[in-house]
Amino acid sequence: MLQMPFRLLTNPLPPVEILLPEQLERLHQASLHILENVGLDFLDDEALDIWQKAGAKVDRAARRVWPDRGLVLEAIAQAPVSFTWRARYPAHNVVVGNNFITFGPNGGMVYTADLERGRRPGTLADLENFLKLSQMCPLLHYASWEQVSPQDVPVSIRHLRRLYAAFTLTNKVVLETAHGREITTDCLEMARLVFGDLTTGGPVIGDVINVNSPLRYDGRMLGGLITYARAGQVCLITPFILAGATSPMTMASALAQQNAEVLAGVALTQLVRPGAPVVYGGFTTPVDMKSAGSVFGTPEGAWALLIGAQLARRYHLPYRGNGSLTNAKTPDAQAAYESMWTLWPAVLGQTHMIMHAVGWLDGGLTASFEKFMIDVEMLAMFYHFLARFNINDETLALDMIAGVGPGGHHFGTPHTQARYRTEFYQTMLADRRNYDSWLAAGGLETTHRAHRLWQDWLTQYHPPPLDPAIREALQAYVNRRERELANKNLYG
Amino acid sequence: MLQMPFRLLTNPLPPVEILLPEQLERLHQASLHILENVGLDFLDDEALDIWQKAGAKVDRAARRVWPDRGLVLEAIAQAPVSFTWRARYPAHNVVVGNNFITFGPNGGMVYTADLERGRRPGTLADLENFLKLSQMCPLLHYASWEQVSPQDVPVSIRHLRRLYAAFTLTNKVVLETAHGREITTDCLEMARLVFGDLTTGGPVIGDVINVNSPLRYDGRMLGGLITYARAGQVCLITPFILAGATSPMTMASALAQQNAEVLAGVALTQLVRPGAPVVYGGFTTPVDMKSAGSVFGTPEGAWALLIGAQLARRYHLPYRGNGSLTNAKTPDAQAAYESMWTLWPAVLGQTHMIMHAVGWLDGGLTASFEKFMIDVEMLAMFYHFLARFNINDETLALDMIAGVGPGGHHFGTPHTQARYRTEFYQTMLADRRNYDSWLAAGGLETTHRAHRLWQDWLTQYHPPPLDPAIREALQAYVNRRERELANKNLYG
Repeated sequence: MLQMPFRLLTNPLPPVEILLPEQLERLHQASLHILENVGLDFLDDEALDIWQKAGAKVDRAARRVWPDRGLVLEAIAQAPVSFTWRARYPAHNVVVGNNFITFGPNGGMVYTADLERGRRPGTLADLENFLKLSQMCPLLHYASWEQVSPQDVPVSIRHLRRLYAAFTLTNKVVLETAHGREITTDCLEMARLVFGDLTTGGPVIGDVINVNSPLRYDGRMLGGLITYARAGQVCLITPFILAGATSPMTMASALAQQNAEVLAGVALTQLVRPGAPVVYGGFTTPVDMKSAGSVFGTPEGAWALLIGAQLARRYHLPYRGNGSLTNAKTPDAQAAYESMWTLWPAVLGQTHMIMHAVGWLDGGLTASFEKFMIDVEMLAMFYHFLARFNINDETLALDMIAGVGPGGHHFGTPHTQARYRTEFYQTMLADRRNYDSWLAAGGLETTHRAHRLWQDWLTQYHPPPLDPAIREALQAYVNRRERELANKNLYG
Repeated sequence: MLQMPFRLLTNPLPPVEILLPEQLERLHQASLHILENVGLDFLDDEALDIWQKAGAKVDRAARRVWPDRGLVLEAIAQAPVSFTWRARYPAHNVVVGNNFITFGPNGGMVYTADLERGRRPGTLADLENFLKLSQMCPLLHYASWEQVSPQDVPVSIRHLRRLYAAFTLTNKVVLETAHGREITTDCLEMARLVFGDLTTGGPVIGDVINVNSPLRYDGRMLGGLITYARAGQVCLITPFILAGATSPMTMASALAQQNAEVLAGVALTQLVRPGAPVVYGGFTTPVDMKSAGSVFGTPEGAWALLIGAQLARRYHLPYRGNGSLTNAKTPDAQAAYESMWTLWPAVLGQTHMIMHAVGWLDGGLTASFEKFMIDVEMLAMFYHFLARFNINDETLALDMIAGVGPGGHHFGTPHTQARYRTEFYQTMLADRRNYDSWLAAGGLETTHRAHRLWQDWLTQYHPPPLDPAIREALQAYVNRRERELANKNLYG
């Protein structure tokens, strides 16, 4: 187990910025031009009503809106610059914004994989194991995010089973799908059973609002956005843009479009409920022209992450990016370096919510237990790195340098002895032995060590305390709704 | 092969700095205190003469020097803020300093390894293969650095064989060992055969001057320092500090000591020859208390890299750090992530010479051909990343966004078609296919793809042109000196 306390990661460094102010302004202006001249589709009548009522130019028949810059900028100015997202265990509350960095697990994967059993469709048991690991990892701030899709549960009731598992197996901040009005209403009802009245105290649930890029919000996402925003819950407005497919290929254009899409979504949350907690999400990647798929852990992805953060700061909005993205099919060198091409810019660019921070494999299709543990080590190293160190008389230890003198050694000094267990980051996974010792111990590569580790963790899992009355109420709600929703198509 | 031209990497970003100015000043003052009050051993009579002549307090019997701050700071102020290091092919000249970043290969390894043959003692044939790969890789600025020690060549003549191989197999900047006066004199003689008179035109050779930390320069390194500096060649003054063994364990103390050691060495080069090209080298890592070995790719190593760069900037000196350090025994996930924990801070901290940028494995004991290729991909990605992109009417492509409109797609547009081959970084090693295609193609991990790649490269190697008269002169020199040095102990 990791011997680190749960805490928010504070970033003391000024964010790395790769755009000059005039370049950022150019992107901003381009996105306003898109909003006013190209417009966006909103495939939901209530959303069109809201835009119309706010004075936007709307074509009801085409379901298109051309929000002008005054309306949009005035709306987004009402969004909070930071907010507290509550967990059912208050010590696990999270502040989204300021110079904090928070980490979330993998989310939305179709397959699960581990070294022993290989790749296979995800099940509820797999999801529960990922929830347990996320709960146990003190470096993760969000416990539940459909780490893998439970394909042994009927689609119409998956959200109920997922959220029940999240509330009973974990006590950290919970995310649950913003798909349409009915699912989000279930989520709010279950959240009320855990938190009581949701009208005060700050948000307790929320999730990603994706955009059907280019420039289209579909009915499902708009139902989720309106329901969560109206209830004061969290919307992470995140266009997923494949530059070259769902936007022009140049990153300048892709990011201008991303920004237009985010601004429209954020503005809509504020038209629904001024002050509703909302996050600027960026997820823009290049398309691979050979496979027509998206590629991750790239220099272009690093640009997009850093510039997304710059744009979010421009609008005083919290920012959501990603952490461990890769196209690798196993947790090998490619998996590690592509993930580092995402996590380094995410941290140094000051990303408030770094989602998919652990466990991601194969372009987001596979949740890997070994990759989860490898990525946890990366997070631990960033906690240590950003904490930096003190420079004072005691740590400078000039007396020890003088005492040992030129040509001596510091191995056995009291100064060293007092610190050798605690001074440096103690690795969880990395093998630091010499070659012969490593070979004698089996010559295992990282994946094999990670395999042992997640299994060890699971044997040590204990469910966090939960009032039995709440558990029963949740179970009763789930049972009732499962009967009601059996065979109903919520994604029609 | 990589389709990228040879060029210096320009870093347009302000360097990431983790120390506040007052903290940096505290380290600076502490290192001056060490110089004046603890002193350093200089185990070489000529070095003691030089210090004495310059007015430093010297104890000849103890071979100890206490250089005062006035003397040291005045001396280092004479070192150039940047310099051009010449290659025998002038288009491969390198500028060390300013906002350039240059990359060097692995150096000084004992073993070599590849996927097929495993780990084994290095040979001249292995070294020649690494020289060829370094020559072929357009992203590496230094071709020769004893990538692996040729253990099938007698120690007394290794430098001759190495340098002959470097000058004949490559035409990039050459580094060759600064061990004592006799070896460096051979290096200068051979360099004269290639470059002619060395008294003008800037340096053509040089290497690392290590410190026997704590606070001791041995006779071998001082012979090398004095010989190279006097000839106007390059000294990379690099203490290799194991915090907790060769310095106190706290990074504050280790870095204060590093700085004292570097300042003394740099000052000595300037007392030998004012204006001699010299580089501030940093290589401070934590000691692992379990194995008493050094550990690489750590948060502490990242601190040391970034702070070394801050200190070098304070003294207007070029800075040397490292790139691909790891303790991993194979090119697995650990190897990749630890390397990224070195390369990211090295680049973002603005390191002018990033040595060991490729090929390093097993704490620096092993030169891996597969790791070499994996690391080359990392360098390629940084070239692309730091080049950033243009934001203008053409790249913003607002007409295309309008033309395609909401809900459309950009896959087949003229804007995309014109760019899809060139717009994005094309990976050399990463597998971006879907799972089934990857599996059908053999399901290879990165190491296996890297294995094919370095073999492909070697089949495409052609030696760069070299005047036959120069080759003959080098061969004759090597032959003569091999006879003279046979069985001589240069390391007595």
